Amino acid sequence: MKLWGGRFSKQTDSLVQQFNASLPFDIRLYDEDITASIVWTQGLVRANILTPQEAKTIIAGLEQVRTEFQQDNIKINSADEDIHSLVERRLTEIVGPVGGKLHTGRSRNDQVATDFRLWTIGAVNQLMIQVTGLQKALHDRAKADLNLPMPGYTHLQHAQPVTWGHWTLSHFWPLERDNQRLAHAQESAAVLPLGSAALAGTAYPVDRHALAKELGFKVLSQNSLDAVSDRDFAADFLYAATMLGLHLSRLSEQLIIFSSSEFGFVSLDDAYSTGSSLMPQKKNPDTLELTRGKAGRLLGNLTGLLATLKGLPSTYDKDLQEDKEPVFDAFDTLNLTLPVMAGVIQTLRLRPQRMAAQLDTGLLATDLADYLVKKGLPFRQAHELVGQVVQLGEEQDQTLAELSLADLKSISDYFERDVGDMFSVTTSLNSRSEPGGTAPGAMIRQLAAAEEILAARSAS
Amino acid sequence: MKLWGGRFSKQTDSLVQQFNASLPFDIRLYDEDITASIVWTQGLVRANILTPQEAKTIIAGLEQVRTEFQQDNIKINSADEDIHSLVERRLTEIVGPVGGKLHTGRSRNDQVATDFRLWTIGAVNQLMIQVTGLQKALHDRAKADLNLPMPGYTHLQHAQPVTWGHWTLSHFWPLERDNQRLAHAQESAAVLPLGSAALAGTAYPVDRHALAKELGFKVLSQNSLDAVSDRDFAADFLYAATMLGLHLSRLSEQLIIFSSSEFGFVSLDDAYSTGSSLMPQKKNPDTLELTRGKAGRLLGNLTGLLATLKGLPSTYDKDLQEDKEPVFDAFDTLNLTLPVMAGVIQTLRLRPQRMAAQLDTGLLATDLADYLVKKGLPFRQAHELVGQVVQLGEEQDQTLAELSLADLKSISDYFERDVGDMFSVTTSLNSRSEPGGTAPGAMIRQLAAAEEILAARSAS
Amino acid sequence: MKLWGGRFSKQTDSLVQQFNASLPFDIRLYDEDITASIVWTQGLVRANILTPQEAKTIIAGLEQVRTEFQQDNIKINSADEDIHSLVERRLTEIVGPVGGKLHTGRSRNDQVATDFRLWTIGAVNQLMIQVTGLQKALHDRAKADLNLPMPGYTHLQHAQPVTWGHWTLSHFWPLERDNQRLAHAQESAAVLPLGSAALAGTAYPVDRHALAKELGFKVLSQNSLDAVSDRDFAADFLYAATMLGLHLSRLSEQLIIFSSSEFGFVSLDDAYSTGSSLMPQKKNPDTLELTRGKAGRLLGNLTGLLATLKGLPSTYDKDLQEDKEPVFDAFDTLNLTLPVMAGVIQTLRLRPQRMAAQLDTGLLATDLADYLVKKGLPFRQAHELVGQVVQLGEEQDQTLAELSLADLKSISDYFERDVGDMFSVTTSLNSRSEPGGTAPGAMIRQLAAAEEILAARSAS
Amino acid sequence: MKLWGGRFSKQTDSLVQQFNASLPFDIRLYDEDITASIVWTQGLVRANILTPQEAKTIIAGLEQVRTEFQQDNIKINSADEDIHSLVERRLTEIVGPVGGKLHTGRSRNDQVATDFRLWTIGAVNQLMIQVTGLQKALHDRAKADLNLPMPGYTHLQHAQPVTWGHWTLSHFWPLERDNQRLAHAQESAAVLPLGSAALAGTAYPVDRHALAKELGFKVLSQNSLDAVSDRDFAADFLYAATMLGLHLSRLSEQLIIFSSSEFGFVSLDDAYSTGSSLMPQKKNPDTLELTRGKAGRLLGNLTGLLATLKGLPSTYDKDLQEDKEPVFDAFDTLNLTLPVMAGVIQTLRLRPQRMAAQLDTGLLATDLADYLVKKGLPFRQAHELVGQVVQLGEEQDQTLAELSLADLKSISDYFERDVGDMFSVTTSLNSRSEPGGTAPGAMIRQLAAAEEILAARSAS
Repeated sequence: MKLWGGRFSKQTDSLVQQFNASLPFDIRLYDEDITASIVWTQGLVRANILTPQEAKTIIAGLEQVRTEFQQDNIKINSADEDIHSLVERRLTEIVGPVGGKLHTGRSRNDQVATDFRLWTIGAVNQLMIQVTGLQKALHDRAKADLNLPMPGYTHLQHAQPVTWGHWTLSHFWPLERDNQRLAHAQESAAVLPLGSAALAGTAYPVDRHALAKELGFKVLSQNSLDAVSDRDFAADFLYAATMLGLHLSRLSEQLIIFSSSEFGFVSLDDAYSTGSSLMPQKKNPDTLELTRGKAGRLLGNLTGLLATLKGLPSTYDKDLQEDKEPVFDAFDTLNLTLPVMAGVIQTLRLRPQRMAAQLDTGLLATDLADYLVKKGLPFRQAHELVGQVVQLGEEQDQTLAELSLADLKSISDYFERDVGDMFSVTTSLNSRSEPGGTAPGAMIRQLAAAEEILAARSAS
Repeated sequence: MKLWGGRFSKQTDSLVQQFNASLPFDIRLYDEDITASIVWTQGLVRANILTPQEAKTIIAGLEQVRTEFQQDNIKINSADEDIHSLVERRLTEIVGPVGGKLHTGRSRNDQVATDFRLWTIGAVNQLMIQVTGLQKALHDRAKADLNLPMPGYTHLQHAQPVTWGHWTLSHFWPLERDNQRLAHAQESAAVLPLGSAALAGTAYPVDRHALAKELGFKVLSQNSLDAVSDRDFAADFLYAATMLGLHLSRLSEQLIIFSSSEFGFVSLDDAYSTGSSLMPQKKNPDTLELTRGKAGRLLGNLTGLLATLKGLPSTYDKDLQEDKEPVFDAFDTLNLTLPVMAGVIQTLRLRPQRMAAQLDTGLLATDLADYLVKKGLPFRQAHELVGQVVQLGEEQDQTLAELSLADLKSISDYFERDVGDMFSVTTSLNSRSEPGGTAPGAMIRQLAAAEEILAARSAS
Repeated sequence: MKLWGGRFSKQTDSLVQQFNASLPFDIRLYDEDITASIVWTQGLVRANILTPQEAKTIIAGLEQVRTEFQQDNIKINSADEDIHSLVERRLTEIVGPVGGKLHTGRSRNDQVATDFRLWTIGAVNQLMIQVTGLQKALHDRAKADLNLPMPGYTHLQHAQPVTWGHWTLSHFWPLERDNQRLAHAQESAAVLPLGSAALAGTAYPVDRHALAKELGFKVLSQNSLDAVSDRDFAADFLYAATMLGLHLSRLSEQLIIFSSSEFGFVSLDDAYSTGSSLMPQKKNPDTLELTRGKAGRLLGNLTGLLATLKGLPSTYDKDLQEDKEPVFDAFDTLNLTLPVMAGVIQTLRLRPQRMAAQLDTGLLATDLADYLVKKGLPFRQAHELVGQVVQLGEEQDQTLAELSLADLKSISDYFERDVGDMFSVTTSLNSRSEPGGTAPGAMIRQLAAAEEILAARSAS
Repeated sequence: MKLWGGRFSKQTDSLVQQFNASLPFDIRLYDEDITASIVWTQGLVRANILTPQEAKTIIAGLEQVRTEFQQDNIKINSADEDIHSLVERRLTEIVGPVGGKLHTGRSRNDQVATDFRLWTIGAVNQLMIQVTGLQKALHDRAKADLNLPMPGYTHLQHAQPVTWGHWTLSHFWPLERDNQRLAHAQESAAVLPLGSAALAGTAYPVDRHALAKELGFKVLSQNSLDAVSDRDFAADFLYAATMLGLHLSRLSEQLIIFSSSEFGFVSLDDAYSTGSSLMPQKKNPDTLELTRGKAGRLLGNLTGLLATLKGLPSTYDKDLQEDKEPVFDAFDTLNLTLPVMAGVIQTLRLRPQRMAAQLDTGLLATDLADYLVKKGLPFRQAHELVGQVVQLGEEQDQTLAELSLADLKSISDYFERDVGDMFSVTTSLNSRSEPGGTAPGAMIRQLAAAEEILAARSAS
């Protein structure tokens, strides 16, 4: 059904009809559309446009439409251009001409904004559950091997010893920031546009405060011209989704590298790997690679919507119809990626011996410099001297621990017999005891902080 | 069907199966997949892997699968993870174990690249037809009112008189550049990867030159490691699509402005406009706004793929599976937008009086400066003096033509009685006679150049 | 000065030196770097690495370096690769070898993150002042002509009457959302990374809580591996900047259109316009066009950083050095654009007669439908009938108000003598009295809400 | 100098002047601006606006201005808003009022487009030299160790044996595609806009064909309205630059991984590595990481310009001033990155033993399946059986080569005594002999194809 034929003397071109139609994707908003229409019906009673009896009829009709949707029993006409006209058309078939009163004082402009905001609020709830699920998986794996030593990297080069727990939780906190961003997006969405009508505000005393309360919105939009064209919440959602996707891509990248033959620190479970059509020996981390790749897709969704919004001239323009598909796609992408990634983490097999094999004494060069600092040398000088020690080791093809005291003394007299005590991964780990560091005590506190967050989330 | 189960001791997790599956979108490649498999079968005959009789059986089976697809009669199993495994599974059901010989010496890595390149070559052909259709519409409208005067704008301010033909053809040439970019993308696609196998090249003497010839590729990929991961052609396609989208957005923006009440230069046909659910008088240029908005979507597709490709480590990685959806979406978007836009142009109603009403003499200020230049003044000085004339006119609330000669002479003695001849739109138009200018003679030559292009395209 | 030469046997290639150097842009962080180094010095006293006397010497040296920067008196060596090495080099020249103790227990990884976060916190403060300045300008102009009627648009087509105050404030609220986003970015930045050292945490008891307090950070980073590579705050800043840029582009677009000859609703002040080198009459809204264009630049900055972050493998990687230039550019862009735009708004000349001339009765079609609704017709039917009225008017070339009662009755008997009262812009405006609507009472409440925000900001 | 003050009654606001000024970046176009002005001068002689003597004076003046620029001797006034007004101002100071004749019949709109196109043509030439330099470095390293075996990867998992030459050349061909894209961008740029004036075409018979010939342009723009706003060439350049950046990021990613301790296939030269301010042992591949990161920056430049172009309304709008900075930045980025990367490649140390250590027999599983195929099994069945062999090997903790014939026969009777011959990397490599494959013969042909390209480039 078209909601607007009267002033037109010609049919819409059929390609144009297909081009304009949003039903293929906005059908997903049926539940929100019906809920918002029911609340609007109540507003029209307050405005004396509908009698309570008429409202009762309309609400019953809308609930019947909802049931038809839920039972996948709704019939779509080729003339239904969007979810709003479909619902109104079907309602009117059910309840008769009184259905034609429902659209009094509202416009699709405020209606679609209301529906989409309601949907987004729910989508954020769902994604936060999924994010928390992945955080839980990371927490559990961190806790299980909290102090298992492994090489720490910067620039993908051996840097200093860290622990498996430390590494694993380093991916917990970015997700917590993602939760914050999702919450901000939800707050952006929780502003009621209904009652803005097409642009100038509704001409009927529907009581917008009551509408907001009944629909669960926190606040009212302040300006109707802005309200019908404000898609900041959709952009905020896509931005939060993109950041989440980036964090997942970073976790994926590391696990892909860690599961290579050469690193071999972890092994993906068969249930989370796939094979090759040609090479029988292959076990590929496809799940991780797809996750990494989808970060690009999410960024594309964000960039696309922002470019669409750029330079839009006024209130509602049809360009805004391009807002929903990227948001739906971002939600679907993450709603599948997050539990898959949680499964990957839960089932990951650690290979501690492979990690141990990489704990060479080069990782302790900073500790060696700290040794000299404790002997009284300025750090800058200590750094320079240990650099020379490293070079000597390379020339003699020896590890730092293999160099003789004489070798060390050839570089600096500050090296003494006790220097051998430095070459201990445990000592190195223990020394990083400030908050956030890799020492066991700091890790216990970090784990507790993570647990507090998980507990708060499961309580809410 | 999975093509790789042997070395796995555990089933794939069901969410992972859904996550990895590309069938929902790569099913679109069925025709290309079957064609490439038939050609591959012939290669395996040359390599003595298949007897001619086996090949005949397989090819007949593949043609039956194709028919099943064409008749929408193919049954999908939940285990079919992509179009390649679906086709092979169905083939083997039809022809028995000999179907298991088809995948000898190839990999999904070179297979998918081949299919996708074939598809892209066809997609470019289709889009070029659509672009040419829009160019034709623009040409026809330009020709019909070639010398109809209208104000020309820079900065959306009145600048100099131009003609409707000139303005309309100014959107013809960007589309011609788009055709060039599409042709470049097609050339990028027309490089055969088949025979690269998973990464190292096939181990069977299939004769890649023959494969290329049979599939219609111009050249062979030079390096198998590169061939299985080269997605430049997909990026080239998305870039060409984005530029095309941008050009359409610019045409749309102008027509949206030109069809406002205030401009009123054009009026969209009812068949290409839509109405409002609330405001009965509205006739909205939704088609143009959607077209403008979709430029963002296309840019999102491009940005997304480019970000996905960034930093990929080697040969084939599963991230590359994210290559098809943006390309399909870009194609579908343009394949619908272009004929809609052609329809808009064909049915557009011009309102020449509204254009004429805006042809104020302010548009002739440059001609006035040129008048002084012809009297011997350096242009920079002439410009300054005419600026003062404009200011005087504004102070006296008079147009340039309304100012008296005395007024003009108060600014410069170079103004003489013949200055009045300047105030003619026709004179102004006629003076822009260099190639590309707005003068009638130049317009005839420009139209001829456009016609030559259209003729060449329709001949090919 | 290089901070790391010891283990290298060869000089850095000179092109590489240029390629790696960040000094050309991170010199901008000198103030934050020195402040953070002073606080770090105090931490080293707590850790017993520095005596109070040594600390005093170092701090005095750092303050001298700061003064040299402030007086533009610092000398740069070609070997200074970044602001951190420059400051340490100069410090050591001033205070001697004790300067070499400053870098004990920290790394450039936590140092640069600390400096950049401090800078971002300040940048947000500055931008919020600029945003508020523009909000103030919009508020003032809205208040001055709060109820001046003008046509309201959707799809750039006449929709319903609104007021200048309503339109102007419709650009106030998006900016308020931008302020929220900037505040969120600031909160993201206000997390102390110092004490994370290179990746594993510092080995010295510097007391990170004290460091945070002294530097004005609210909380500590929880995980050192995350802390050195977390650039979410930079992305949050760029996202907030992009949204702000988009909102400014939308305001610009409308003012560009409103200042065209055809609309003529507003006229830019000469001080905010520019001319043409060729056409003497031109007065161009260059400021608005540049503002619109810069939305693209800001989006580019955001997209670029997000793509850089995608798939980064671990803790600190040098890719992160690409984080600062887009942030600095976004800040500089907005820090100049916002006051220019405030000036444009403050000096804009309104042309109420031009607005009035566009207040045709077509804008009242919705009111005519509402008239029928009040007579008891369902809205959907009323909408259809008024659509026919509009069509009749177009056929007879008459406005709605010009149609006779007989004409109206030919379409519906519900039209009666009192229908003429409908054709009043004032009545139409007054009827939109729900919160956010265009009625005078609603506008007063909206203005008050805006004033409350401005008052709160100026108080803070 | 302003070129347009006459009609303005008020000075430009000083912030606006700063906001509008493009001189800080377009000063880079001085050489092109002067060259184009000289050619324009000759056009004005043909148009009888200048006498030959005046032209001589102007040209001498312009050459003097050029010399002042070249000697870094030009003085900039605060009123110089762009390179065009600076050159004309200085010219007029030198030659007197006759300088005011230079701008006759042209506009900054066609002037800036001409200058920028000339610059882009030169920039492409320079980048193609740099790309070819990197291709040469790759070629040389490939040739030096053409058949050195190394593991080939898909999904970063061991796949099949390949050779160093094969891997290295796999980065040669993407760069060759980049050269094609750069050439296309250059072709886009080589269209002369001069003579389009502000929008409608010049009013003077300057002979545009002669202008094109004198400036080295291949063709004339066909439509003046299009010509002044066509920035496709800038987008084409940025797209080519982005693709080039992506290819460099992929090469970088692999070398970063290959130079990790765990892989250890290559070692960067000291001159192309950097150290850590904290960890004395570190040798970091900063050059590679920066290169990888800059792919994001280049994508940002592209996305930004495309978003700026979206929806621009007509001919020249000031938004277009945002075109130059991203192009200049992309050029500078690549012009430094490419030679750095060439240096990285030239000086890279290979570690063949580390590669050899990773050539496990798992890489030969496909060969084992091919063995069964040659015994007559369909490939699909062979693949399944070898998968079981792999699994058996994992269970027994044995490599494929270590499994006994009895073990193999327990899975399939097709395995016979000659199966042992399969476990040879050399045999595996030799079998990939189709064009593009890793076999020595195919590699010689591939190298020859690369050499042909390099020879053609050095000849041109």
